[in-house]
Amino acid sequence: MTGADTTGGTTERVVVVIGAGTIGLGWITLFLAHGHHVRVNSTRSDVGSAVRAGVAMLAPGLPGPRRDPQELTARLTVEPNLDRALDGAEVVQENIPEDLGLKQQLFARLGKAAGPRTLLLSSTSTLLPDDLGADMDDPSRVIVGHPFNPPHVVPLVEVVTGARTAPGAVDEATAFYRELGKVPVALRRPIAAFAANRLQAALLQESIHLVLEGVVTVEELDRIVVSSIGLRWATMGPFRSFHLGGGQGGLRRWLTTLGAGLQRGWEGLGRPVLDDQAIEQILAQADEAFGGMQYDELVARRDALQRAVLATLADTDSTSAWHS
Amino acid sequence: MTGADTTGGTTERVVVVIGAGTIGLGWITLFLAHGHHVRVNSTRSDVGSAVRAGVAMLAPGLPGPRRDPQELTARLTVEPNLDRALDGAEVVQENIPEDLGLKQQLFARLGKAAGPRTLLLSSTSTLLPDDLGADMDDPSRVIVGHPFNPPHVVPLVEVVTGARTAPGAVDEATAFYRELGKVPVALRRPIAAFAANRLQAALLQESIHLVLEGVVTVEELDRIVVSSIGLRWATMGPFRSFHLGGGQGGLRRWLTTLGAGLQRGWEGLGRPVLDDQAIEQILAQADEAFGGMQYDELVARRDALQRAVLATLADTDSTSAWHS
Repeated sequence: MTGADTTGGTTERVVVVIGAGTIGLGWITLFLAHGHHVRVNSTRSDVGSAVRAGVAMLAPGLPGPRRDPQELTARLTVEPNLDRALDGAEVVQENIPEDLGLKQQLFARLGKAAGPRTLLLSSTSTLLPDDLGADMDDPSRVIVGHPFNPPHVVPLVEVVTGARTAPGAVDEATAFYRELGKVPVALRRPIAAFAANRLQAALLQESIHLVLEGVVTVEELDRIVVSSIGLRWATMGPFRSFHLGGGQGGLRRWLTTLGAGLQRGWEGLGRPVLDDQAIEQILAQADEAFGGMQYDELVARRDALQRAVLATLADTDSTSAWHS
Repeated sequence: MTGADTTGGTTERVVVVIGAGTIGLGWITLFLAHGHHVRVNSTRSDVGSAVRAGVAMLAPGLPGPRRDPQELTARLTVEPNLDRALDGAEVVQENIPEDLGLKQQLFARLGKAAGPRTLLLSSTSTLLPDDLGADMDDPSRVIVGHPFNPPHVVPLVEVVTGARTAPGAVDEATAFYRELGKVPVALRRPIAAFAANRLQAALLQESIHLVLEGVVTVEELDRIVVSSIGLRWATMGPFRSFHLGGGQGGLRRWLTTLGAGLQRGWEGLGRPVLDDQAIEQILAQADEAFGGMQYDELVARRDALQRAVLATLADTDSTSAWHS
C-alpha cells in the first residue's frame, strides 16, 4: 500500500473476488480498470463467460476515460479452487449471498488458507465483522467494505470493523478503496444496516407514506426527489445544506430557532404499514411510472447519468472543498 | 398562457414580487431571466439597490447561458404602492415572512386590488391556501407555489391548492412555472410541510441520530450522503432506485421479498431528542466541518455545482426519459 504507479494511482495487486453476482461484477470491473489482477473464485462452470459479458456491459459506466473491455479482461482469471485462488493474493472481496452461516464457513476457510497479510473484505450490507469471523482463530483482518450499488460507479464504501480488527488493517482497507477512486468512510462504531441504508430507509418510509396517503403518486414522488433534494444532496450533504438554509446565522441559527419545529415535524412523519394491499398499491403506480421500460436500459441510463454527474462534480471549480 | 416567444419559451408578463428576502431575490432573478417585467413591492427605502445587488450575485447561478445582470435589471422596477404595483399584473409571487396573520392581511388586500385574472401565488413552506385566503371573498386564484431554495437554481416547485381553488388557475400556475424551466408538481391533497420538506426531515432525523450516537461525525455524514444516495437521487428517485435494486424482478421482487425487513428497519430508526446538549454537540462538529468557510463562498459553490449538475443531466443522452 505504498503509492502510485503508472496506471493512475493504483498499485497493481492480486485481488480475489468471491461471488460474481451484481455486486461482485461491479467490483471486478472496477478492480480490473485500476490495473489489478483479478481472480474470480467460483464453481459455476460458465463463470468465465458470464464475467466477461458482465465486464463488457458495465465498463461504459466506469468513471474516467472509456475503457476497452477486452483490455480489462486480459487481467482476469477464474480459479474454482479456493486455495489456488488465494495464492499470493493481497486482497479478497467477498460477495456471496447474505447468509451468515455460509459467510462464517467461508471466512473460516479464508482464515486458514489466506496469507497472514491478506485483507479479507466483505461486501455484506447487514452483517458485522465479529459475526463474519466468529469461527476464525484470527479475525483481525476481516473488515466490511460495503459498496453502494453499482460498486463500479457510486463512490461510497462503508468500512465497518469489529472488536478484534487490527487498526493497521483498517488503514490498508481504506487506502485500497481510495486508490480505486472510492470514498471510504469508516464507521466509528458498528450499527445495524450501517449508515447510508438507514438514511435511505428513513426517506423511503416517508415516500411510501406520502404515496399511500394519496398526496403524490410514485412517479410524482420520484420527480420531487430528483428535482430538489437529490440535486441538493449530490452537491452537499444534509448538514451543510441546513447550514446554508439558516442564512448568515448558519446551522446555529437554524437549529436554535427552528429546532423545536423540526422535532415536531418528526413526530408528524408517517408510519406506513407495508401490508399486501399497500404493496399492490405501490406496485400498480410503479408499473405505470416505469413498468414499460426495459430493466437493462434503465440500468444503462442510470450508470450514464451517474457517471456524467460524477465527472461534472469532479470538474467543477473547487469541488474538492465540498468533500474535504 | 399561450406559448413561446423569442426569449426562449417564455411569454413576457408583468410579475409582482412581494418581499425581497432570500427567496424573493431568487424568484426575481429567475423571472427577469425569462423576460418578465418584474415589479418589486416593498416599502424598504433601499430595496432597489439591494435587489440589483442580489440579482448580480445570483445571476451566475442561473441555469442556461450566462446572463448579464445589467440587462436583467433593465426590466426591474420598484413600486412601494401595492395598488400601482398590481396594475396590469398577471402574476403575483408573495414571499413575506412566514406569519399567517400578515399573509392573510396581504391576501385580503390582493383580493381587492388585483385584477380578476391575476394569479396569486405564495412561496410559503408551511401555510395552506385555505388559510392564506381565509379573509378573501374569492380565494379561487390563491395557490401555493413553494420553491426549493435557491429558487433560481433548484427545479422543484410544489403546487398546493385549497378547497376553493379554481382548476383553471392550477393549470395556469403550473404552466407559468414550467415556462420558467421549473418542475412544478401539484400535490393531490394538502399536507403539513408538503412533500419535499417532509422527506428532508425524515433523512435529517436519522442523520442527527447517527451523529448523536457517535456512528459518524457531521462531516462524515455529509460525505456519506454526497457519495451515495445524493448521487443516486439526483439521477433517479427512490422508487426507481429500488426498482433497479431489486434486480431483474424489480420493485415487485424487492417489496415482496424484502418488505418485511424494510418494515423492521423502520422500527430501528432513531428518535433523537434535540435538546440543548444535542444541538451543541452537532454545532461543535459542524464548526469543525465547515465553520472556517465563508457563507457567501459556500453559497456560490453550491449554486455553481447545482447549476453544473443540472446542465449535465439535461445534456446526457435520453435524460428526459427519467423525468417523463
